[in-house]
Amino acid sequence: MNAYERLEAHHRRLFHLDHINAIVSWDEATMMPRGGGPARADALAALAQLRHERACDPQVGDLLEQAVQDSSALSDWQKANLGHMRRSWLRNTSLPNALVGARSRARVRSEQAWRDLRQANDWAGFRPYLEEVLALEREVAQALGQALGCAPYDALIDQYNPGLRQAHIDPLFAELAAFLPDFIERVVEVSARRPRVAPGGPFPVEQQRALCMQVMKALGFDFEHGRLDISHHPFCGGVPRDVRITTRYSEQSFISALMGLIHETGHGRYEQGLPDAWLGQPVGTAHGMAMHESQSLFFEMQLGRSLPFCTFLAPLVREAFPAHASAQPEAFTPENLHASYIHVERSLIRVDADEATYPTHVLLRYDIEKDLMAGRMQVADIPERWAEGMQRLLGLDTRGNDRDGCMQDVHWPAAIFGYFPSYTLGAIIAAQLFAAMSRALPDLDRTIARGELGAVVTWLSDAVWSQASRHDLDPLLQRATGEPLSARAYRAHLERRYLDA
Amino acid sequence: MNAYERLEAHHRRLFHLDHINAIVSWDEATMMPRGGGPARADALAALAQLRHERACDPQVGDLLEQAVQDSSALSDWQKANLGHMRRSWLRNTSLPNALVGARSRARVRSEQAWRDLRQANDWAGFRPYLEEVLALEREVAQALGQALGCAPYDALIDQYNPGLRQAHIDPLFAELAAFLPDFIERVVEVSARRPRVAPGGPFPVEQQRALCMQVMKALGFDFEHGRLDISHHPFCGGVPRDVRITTRYSEQSFISALMGLIHETGHGRYEQGLPDAWLGQPVGTAHGMAMHESQSLFFEMQLGRSLPFCTFLAPLVREAFPAHASAQPEAFTPENLHASYIHVERSLIRVDADEATYPTHVLLRYDIEKDLMAGRMQVADIPERWAEGMQRLLGLDTRGNDRDGCMQDVHWPAAIFGYFPSYTLGAIIAAQLFAAMSRALPDLDRTIARGELGAVVTWLSDAVWSQASRHDLDPLLQRATGEPLSARAYRAHLERRYLDA
Repeated sequence: MNAYERLEAHHRRLFHLDHINAIVSWDEATMMPRGGGPARADALAALAQLRHERACDPQVGDLLEQAVQDSSALSDWQKANLGHMRRSWLRNTSLPNALVGARSRARVRSEQAWRDLRQANDWAGFRPYLEEVLALEREVAQALGQALGCAPYDALIDQYNPGLRQAHIDPLFAELAAFLPDFIERVVEVSARRPRVAPGGPFPVEQQRALCMQVMKALGFDFEHGRLDISHHPFCGGVPRDVRITTRYSEQSFISALMGLIHETGHGRYEQGLPDAWLGQPVGTAHGMAMHESQSLFFEMQLGRSLPFCTFLAPLVREAFPAHASAQPEAFTPENLHASYIHVERSLIRVDADEATYPTHVLLRYDIEKDLMAGRMQVADIPERWAEGMQRLLGLDTRGNDRDGCMQDVHWPAAIFGYFPSYTLGAIIAAQLFAAMSRALPDLDRTIARGELGAVVTWLSDAVWSQASRHDLDPLLQRATGEPLSARAYRAHLERRYLDA
Repeated sequence: MNAYERLEAHHRRLFHLDHINAIVSWDEATMMPRGGGPARADALAALAQLRHERACDPQVGDLLEQAVQDSSALSDWQKANLGHMRRSWLRNTSLPNALVGARSRARVRSEQAWRDLRQANDWAGFRPYLEEVLALEREVAQALGQALGCAPYDALIDQYNPGLRQAHIDPLFAELAAFLPDFIERVVEVSARRPRVAPGGPFPVEQQRALCMQVMKALGFDFEHGRLDISHHPFCGGVPRDVRITTRYSEQSFISALMGLIHETGHGRYEQGLPDAWLGQPVGTAHGMAMHESQSLFFEMQLGRSLPFCTFLAPLVREAFPAHASAQPEAFTPENLHASYIHVERSLIRVDADEATYPTHVLLRYDIEKDLMAGRMQVADIPERWAEGMQRLLGLDTRGNDRDGCMQDVHWPAAIFGYFPSYTLGAIIAAQLFAAMSRALPDLDRTIARGELGAVVTWLSDAVWSQASRHDLDPLLQRATGEPLSARAYRAHLERRYLDA
């Protein structure tokens, strides 16, 4: 084996450990009894340290040098793979092994504690966990930033979106910060006037689950290579050939769980659609979390909440709940489902927020993360800063209600800093992709309304899934849409959907 | 840290990897979608190799030598722990790392294939998997046997029951082989005459599950540190502070699932009852699989199927299925439950077999394993040998029905050779423990009938759970029962329960 081939074998082994970690982490969130928590935190930390030791095997440095020297013989995919291997090596070797273990243990324990403390609205109890986690993330960010030659917070963003920097994000987010307040003001008024009937429950969980699985299958989710479960915080985990999607149901309404699963199905199809030939290699993984969120938001926001898709959905919902539908037929029409799914109002919870107000959460989290990482604010300052931001951006009061304020999201408890921008970048990318696809596919609305999604899937697979991490973000978007990342299509989409109707 | 303390830290890390492996293996059996199988087999193999590499770290050899030299300062528990560390080192270093990976991959793939091929009664399709697995196990047995200074098959037994050899098992099993045929003959006759009414179903799975959980709680199973799920083959997995019990339900009858869970609860309580102070150390693990099976069989056979326990159980069953109970009151009496649970008849399936005929499966498996490992027979000979044995021992014909014959059990597909004796040794130990406990605790039948199991649990915890792997088998039994391993109490129990009634 030459140096490059030995590096591929090395990364295949790391991928196996990532597989193990993904399944055990999924178990931690969905299956583990509470009392199993402390031992699990230790076990995951030991795995993280072992994985890191492996990744930092000194031989790898020599192999990378050799492979770069011999790289003229490599294919474009192999060259891109080698590039990812080098960045991964830089990132790994910049961190002391003990820090990797301490970080893993702290994040698992903190997330476990958060599950109860959030319920109890107990900020004072949670604060020390977050302080420990943040101190470790600052250390990680410093070390990674030095290795990558970027600011500490950039280095955290880079973990989730390789190559992405604040310098790319700031102007886009500034554009939205200018656009959104007035837009939301107008949309809330329009939305309040739009007629809409809430389908009356209760909707038994088992029937909701069956409906969700039916819709997931219609969207092509492969249950031979994935499954659906319940968790506290909906997510998509697992590995490309064993995708673990989770949700939570409310008996009062199927509206939120159903759309949540359409969202997660977008994540899942991306993973299931990654190219077989590169499975287990860095270039074969999903492009980054902004692109990942773009796939879930393409499924949810662009496709799922559209009138054509609601036209496909309505009869399935009526079949799932025939008694409800015959008792209240006006609630189960495509038009009413669509109206429910594009209803906008100011509300506290990000994961339940509508498409128009959602980005305010992200802008606020992004600003706070920047200040936390730069040391301009401390953990103790978060509740007040959150309350001030929510008041300013949405006119909502979260003082004394940290449970539905700054404590609502799993990210910070789980030491996930630098991720939040991915959501809104994903929304921007999703709109850009959908606009390009609409230009490419004739008669799109009618085929979607009939549930014929083959052309959509083929287009997405060609544009995104099959490309894995072969290109950087702008070249990938250029190839798929004819232009680099831009908020133009996103703003046009928002105005068309929420103000033209 | 001195050498001994460094060895403790080393074993704590191995324990974390064993935790990870236990959870991922549980997931493989209960949760994983079928398509995830190949990648999972590779991931588990990579984990096994990494664990093995770690276990064989050359430094450990030096530390062991040093710790043995300094061992006069160690406590008895520490000395026992050091002994286990040394045997574990011998076992690990005797195996090449590549063999560890190949063995793990082959066993996971073979078990995955078996799930379908058994259903399809496809011996020809399954045979190559078993041949690969057996070839690797023979290699493992050779290497382990050389390191431990024992016969290859002894080395396999030793994996599940440290220190146990064929020389201990053979006389006990010969005693049973002489005792059982005539005993079964008589018991089948007695049993056929004993009146017994089958409770009429259907029994919805959800209600069965609730009943089972109620009984598990009454037996002290801690759901804060464990859970209950469904799998193809019932088992108890996970780790001491996160015990994963599985079962399968039939709507036709609750009888089998309920007793199956009482059995698995015995395994689970043993794990949950291991001493905190030694968690993560070799001496802190369960004693061996014979002792493990003794705990499940103590719960199932000694306690669960007894008339006093059925007296406690009957009202719970009636509350769980009130309509059934009022329609057919004679089926829900303590006496009738007891009669159902001690009914004996010749049947094909080990896991559904009654207490009296069950050992014939074990005797036959043991004989075949010995011959397979000694090279006196080949995989191709198994179906005929199985058919001949079942005919001879139970008068049953399995020719052409490998699904319910030699293919019925997960052990060989999963490369578990040397385990089967544990079941019958466990039954023998369970009877010996129960007899000793009955001598120690006054008024036992009446407290059991009232569901007051505190004294039973305290006795078991003192005799077995709290001792973990502190003693060898005979000293452990001597301490708990006043005598070494003997089949006397077991035979007395069988004769009293099945012939005196």
